[in-house]
Amino acid sequence: IPLSRNTRCTCINISNRSVNPRSLEKLEVIPASQSCPRVEIIATMKKNGEKRCLNPESKTIKNLLKAINKQRTKRSPRTQREA
Amino acid sequence: IPLSRNTRCTCINISNRSVNPRSLEKLEVIPASQSCPRVEIIATMKKNGEKRCLNPESKTIKNLLKAINKQRTKRSPRTQREA
Repeated sequence: IPLSRNTRCTCINISNRSVNPRSLEKLEVIPASQSCPRVEIIATMKKNGEKRCLNPESKTIKNLLKAINKQRTKRSPRTQREA
Repeated sequence: IPLSRNTRCTCINISNRSVNPRSLEKLEVIPASQSCPRVEIIATMKKNGEKRCLNPESKTIKNLLKAINKQRTKRSPRTQREA
């Protein structure tokens, strides 16, 4: 059952499962627009390039963004000076 | 001057300019990995598909994500019930 018939959203099913930041290749955030009235968040997994739509309201996203930011600080302490 | 020679990061120049959420087509967040030791945030603009790398440490990102979330709530109040 598509969420909306009049629009061209990318996501049909939205997962509330959590995503391991280490398995994540990238995260795409697509703002609401004329072609889709809701924000879409698409996680692409490293393993097989699987794309998974995430609920922007979920804690998953907040945790994920937090984890990604921590990762940066840990692995590349020079970022701040270089920026 | 590339930020690092041994890695294949997508971003060479990182902008600290703010981005209007209405001009934004999508935002990509790429976690740190073996091929690039830092988080990369790539904004694709609606106008000409221009890609702009943003500083993950900047307020721009936080404001942008906030604005995108607000946008959703305003335009699609049903999201919560549908999810």
